Amino acid sequence: MLIAGIDAGGSKTECIIVDTEKDKIITRAQTGAANYQVVGLEAACREIKLALEQAKKRAGISCLKAVGIGLAGAGRREDLVKIEREMGKIMNSRNFFFSSDAHIALLGATGGSTGAVLIAGTGSIAYGLKKNGAKIRSGGWGPIIGDEGSGFWIGLEAAKKAVRAEEMRAEKTELKNLVLEHFNFSKLEELIPFIYQQQLPRQKIAALAPAVFDLAQNGDEAALEICQEAAAELALLAHSALLKLDYQEDKIAAAGGLIKSSYFYQLLKEKLRENYELEIYKAKKSAAYGAVFMALRELEN
Amino acid sequence: MLIAGIDAGGSKTECIIVDTEKDKIITRAQTGAANYQVVGLEAACREIKLALEQAKKRAGISCLKAVGIGLAGAGRREDLVKIEREMGKIMNSRNFFFSSDAHIALLGATGGSTGAVLIAGTGSIAYGLKKNGAKIRSGGWGPIIGDEGSGFWIGLEAAKKAVRAEEMRAEKTELKNLVLEHFNFSKLEELIPFIYQQQLPRQKIAALAPAVFDLAQNGDEAALEICQEAAAELALLAHSALLKLDYQEDKIAAAGGLIKSSYFYQLLKEKLRENYELEIYKAKKSAAYGAVFMALRELEN
Repeated sequence: MLIAGIDAGGSKTECIIVDTEKDKIITRAQTGAANYQVVGLEAACREIKLALEQAKKRAGISCLKAVGIGLAGAGRREDLVKIEREMGKIMNSRNFFFSSDAHIALLGATGGSTGAVLIAGTGSIAYGLKKNGAKIRSGGWGPIIGDEGSGFWIGLEAAKKAVRAEEMRAEKTELKNLVLEHFNFSKLEELIPFIYQQQLPRQKIAALAPAVFDLAQNGDEAALEICQEAAAELALLAHSALLKLDYQEDKIAAAGGLIKSSYFYQLLKEKLRENYELEIYKAKKSAAYGAVFMALRELEN
Repeated sequence: MLIAGIDAGGSKTECIIVDTEKDKIITRAQTGAANYQVVGLEAACREIKLALEQAKKRAGISCLKAVGIGLAGAGRREDLVKIEREMGKIMNSRNFFFSSDAHIALLGATGGSTGAVLIAGTGSIAYGLKKNGAKIRSGGWGPIIGDEGSGFWIGLEAAKKAVRAEEMRAEKTELKNLVLEHFNFSKLEELIPFIYQQQLPRQKIAALAPAVFDLAQNGDEAALEICQEAAAELALLAHSALLKLDYQEDKIAAAGGLIKSSYFYQLLKEKLRENYELEIYKAKKSAAYGAVFMALRELEN
């Protein structure tokens, strides 16, 4: 069977077409951002449709068995219904299946089975499925109330600690230079218009995280504190999600940009093991592949 | 001499007219918000002019020696120049003197002398003057990067701790019920649209602070932690500002809404004494009165 999986995310939309018998990706395509809370419903649908058409064209395929789509910013049922209706208008097929980005990330990360996933990217969330299919989550409260341990959180902590050191409210740290260089600022005060401009620059702040990891490895105390605290927060998030499952699970999949740092992944692994006797493993497949698993399941039901 | 003092703030604009020989307030008037970063330059000027006209009319005065105006959201020199120019267009007088809200708060709090003031309201900032008149400050970085220990910070911490307890990431606390009741929510998830609506509801979140103080006094551990940490953050802010002065100062004035709670004032007093051997005293006069002192000084120069 040929099934398309689409990961419609906050920074890009990725579409893959999978030959499910061979468990093989036939083709890939990528288009723009599709978090509909940010870009709007119409633009999100347009990007999704475009990604799908590009992938089909590249593979020379006109007919698909099904399409699975995971949507960033569509955590609530009302959101999914709304986008499903809108997509129905522009697509002439009934085999479209929608879910949240966390859901396809879980299916991708676990290779299509149940369990739980910790997603540590620009934001942070832990997500899992109960036996009866009910969804559970911890975190995912966004940059103001939540996102503890995420890339955004790490970047913001770096900025905060730089400010505090500058005002003699904390020990000196290299974080100031890191922030100035990263954003090409001449003084920390430039953070103010940058942060309070119309839209909070989440991704730009999250992009500080790898440099904070480097600084921590080079022995900067303040940077190390941030990394340790981020790992502890993510471990706590993972643990709390696993507590909500109705089965015993002693491991959790990890996905998201922060996991790409082997330094940070190691820190996280240690925190989980020491504090909660939990193991972690890297996502087996991508979220787009998870969307394929999701469509496959729906067809089977 | 008759001098008007105007405190053009984020939630209201207050104008007083003072007979400086008698050190007596002749009249008062109050109009709408005038933080020009929020309401715009024109609206801010309109509110200021309206407050002044109302006060003059009430007192039956047509002529003033001078007007002092302290502006919220106008911490930078460029901001002051811009608003001074705009006000010049609508007022036919040269004796208008402008400064930031922190500056008039300091002059009001100290009774017109130099020193430093810790302002703990919706936001937090510590502000002082050096011997040569140069301004120094710590904090005032706004709700995302700064405002540690402020009303907004306390309210947000309450919401965060409620969420964390709900997700079994922290100990149980009464803060959940407090948040639900205060905002008339049926579940904590309602915080998400509330917080991420177009404009961050700073004042509404800061309005949680008094209830957090009550809960702390009633023995809720999580609420007590927030209060202790807020007091410690404010003490640190005050200390760091005093470090920047070019004279020894072992006391600081306190102003802002949080100080009205005798419970919290006491906590803050203890933190300052224990951690930094510093004393605190309550603002002698209002910020509007500080604007009168400011105008008086300018006339003398």
